Amino acid sequence: MAATPASDSTALDADPAFALHRGGKIEIRSTVPVRDADDLSLAYTPGVARVCSGIADDPALAADYTWVSRVVAVVSDGTAVLGLGDIGPSAAMPVMEGKALLFKEFANVDAVPLCLDCTDVDALVETVTRLAPSFGGINLEDISAPRCFEVEQRLRDALDIPVFHDDQHGTAIVVLAALKNAARLTGRTLGDLRAVVAGAGASGVAVTRILLEAGIGDIAVSDSKGLIYDGRDGLNPVKQALARDTNKAGHTGSTEEALAGADVFVGLSGSTVSEEAIASMAPGSIVFALSNPTPEVHPDVAARHATVVATGRSDFPNQINNVLAFPGVFRGALDVRAGSITENMKVAAADALAGVVGDDLSATYVIPSPFDERVAPAVIAAVAAQARADGVARL
Amino acid sequence: MAATPASDSTALDADPAFALHRGGKIEIRSTVPVRDADDLSLAYTPGVARVCSGIADDPALAADYTWVSRVVAVVSDGTAVLGLGDIGPSAAMPVMEGKALLFKEFANVDAVPLCLDCTDVDALVETVTRLAPSFGGINLEDISAPRCFEVEQRLRDALDIPVFHDDQHGTAIVVLAALKNAARLTGRTLGDLRAVVAGAGASGVAVTRILLEAGIGDIAVSDSKGLIYDGRDGLNPVKQALARDTNKAGHTGSTEEALAGADVFVGLSGSTVSEEAIASMAPGSIVFALSNPTPEVHPDVAARHATVVATGRSDFPNQINNVLAFPGVFRGALDVRAGSITENMKVAAADALAGVVGDDLSATYVIPSPFDERVAPAVIAAVAAQARADGVARL
Repeated sequence: MAATPASDSTALDADPAFALHRGGKIEIRSTVPVRDADDLSLAYTPGVARVCSGIADDPALAADYTWVSRVVAVVSDGTAVLGLGDIGPSAAMPVMEGKALLFKEFANVDAVPLCLDCTDVDALVETVTRLAPSFGGINLEDISAPRCFEVEQRLRDALDIPVFHDDQHGTAIVVLAALKNAARLTGRTLGDLRAVVAGAGASGVAVTRILLEAGIGDIAVSDSKGLIYDGRDGLNPVKQALARDTNKAGHTGSTEEALAGADVFVGLSGSTVSEEAIASMAPGSIVFALSNPTPEVHPDVAARHATVVATGRSDFPNQINNVLAFPGVFRGALDVRAGSITENMKVAAADALAGVVGDDLSATYVIPSPFDERVAPAVIAAVAAQARADGVARL
Repeated sequence: MAATPASDSTALDADPAFALHRGGKIEIRSTVPVRDADDLSLAYTPGVARVCSGIADDPALAADYTWVSRVVAVVSDGTAVLGLGDIGPSAAMPVMEGKALLFKEFANVDAVPLCLDCTDVDALVETVTRLAPSFGGINLEDISAPRCFEVEQRLRDALDIPVFHDDQHGTAIVVLAALKNAARLTGRTLGDLRAVVAGAGASGVAVTRILLEAGIGDIAVSDSKGLIYDGRDGLNPVKQALARDTNKAGHTGSTEEALAGADVFVGLSGSTVSEEAIASMAPGSIVFALSNPTPEVHPDVAARHATVVATGRSDFPNQINNVLAFPGVFRGALDVRAGSITENMKVAAADALAGVVGDDLSATYVIPSPFDERVAPAVIAAVAAQARADGVARL
């Protein structure tokens, strides 16, 4: 006879997060009627055969006559899930399903969560490549560094649809938007700023890259062994490249040492930073303590010394939340059938996001709320326009 | 600037099949609200982390707290699509999306169409195995024979969720149901019947296997080279096994020769059969000419000689349509979290389907309509009960 269901599942529902998750968070729905034999003969055999033949003759028709051009795969191997680490594909599913939910709710993007039972770079690239005919875009998620960099790069090279590792670029876009507004508020340009980024995982690397591209004055990056500098032993290729491109000042010590006199701190590390270190920053400092649920420094403590403080949490001002970016980025890219998401498109998304704040800019409002209804339209329009300008749009 | 869209796509919409397919046939929908920061903190971070941790500790919880236990992957490599053959994964998508639509409409099964850009057996098995943590069942579709047999068998061995090649077993279930009713109508048992099956592809093999299991008297199977018999040159392993288990009478000629005196013809070949051959069958003959859109013999012609005639077409009586089986088979299996779909479960589905006809049985009503609302509940209940009886249910 049947095995018993998971033993304590009813008790778990006392936690509202479990209660909300019971039965899952998304479903498939039909968009055409199947009421009678006539409907059936159009949506399925024999009518469907004409559509299949049409696509076989002209593959471009697939975008018009299937859901492919509007559906994104949310792909993870479960190796770097939130702050939980390598919990495997099954346990990662609530996050990927949540991502699909947010895609739909915030930008009407259809997204399918796919948690893969493989972690080898070759296997991940191969599997997603085989799946590609079924999707209009690939959102990579919670794949641990440094594998995530190679997986994304190889998929970008292999596929003619957008491939976007949200842990990298979603975070980078929102940080750039908030930092641009924080600089504006304090009367500076990005070129005036010297930043310290704690964390050289997916988000730390991507934030560093987008800030470099946006013209930040200088930037020092640290990992669990301290600051990354040219010549440090044991750096992997990604960190070697960072060492070459960052840390003009040549700091070799700890994150906290580099903070002395710095203008910007971006925490993406899960580590902690002392009040003393924050106090040692330059006047008008900007502190983005983004680790969740425990920021690198408590925002109330940071606010004693910093002019602008942001976190990843919804219960403090200036929440740096990826949901501000990824739904609109993909919607914009899909709307014009972009073949890729360029660096310019990411910067355009950040500019659009920063622009929503407009004249309401203040120390506690450098980035809009995820529920601000102006956000998605602004990001979508900017990304679509930039895709056209960059020549990657097919519509 | 953007490329122009597929050139003649507007003109194509004059065909109602194209018009219906514009934009695709399915979408993702949310089943939980995301109205404010509180909702977001439960459906996504930080609340979702507790659900992920719970599943990491007790993997059985994934079935309760994600959509996985109710979602089926409709997987094809596009090598044997309808009668169109090997048209590739993109052109196969309208069929797979249609299948997902029918899953939802007929038995509220959430299904995701996945058309894979690989055709090697190892690659297909490997890819679906990697995808398995994301699904509660795998519906294989339109994969050409004989690869389909090995792909299905290896996936059944590797996975603890239902794997079901619908071209094989969906067809087999509906044919068995209709044949049981046709035998009842004509006062015979299956053991009284000698059958000829034209076609040794996916459906021909599976129909033959289920009829053998159900106790058919004798059965001869033909492929494009004629009847399959023990010792025929060049038989692949699947056909060698068929040769051993069928054709007790030792026919060695054509399909039409074997039809002389036969009780049942099942056409699954795309070939044609002459009126003379049909006329040569035994009195009270049963003709299932199932090729679509052109049956092996026109049903009006067959009806001059046969007592019961069925086709795959909706515009003639007795339509043999897989949609009578696959939605309910999967719904029943998912409802009890069956680890596989057993042979008994398929036969139970056929019996349930045959039973819907009941006392209304007639020569033009041996199988119910796909739109008969009694069909899905009957199949679901029978499959779920048989899964429990067979010890493969986990609920």
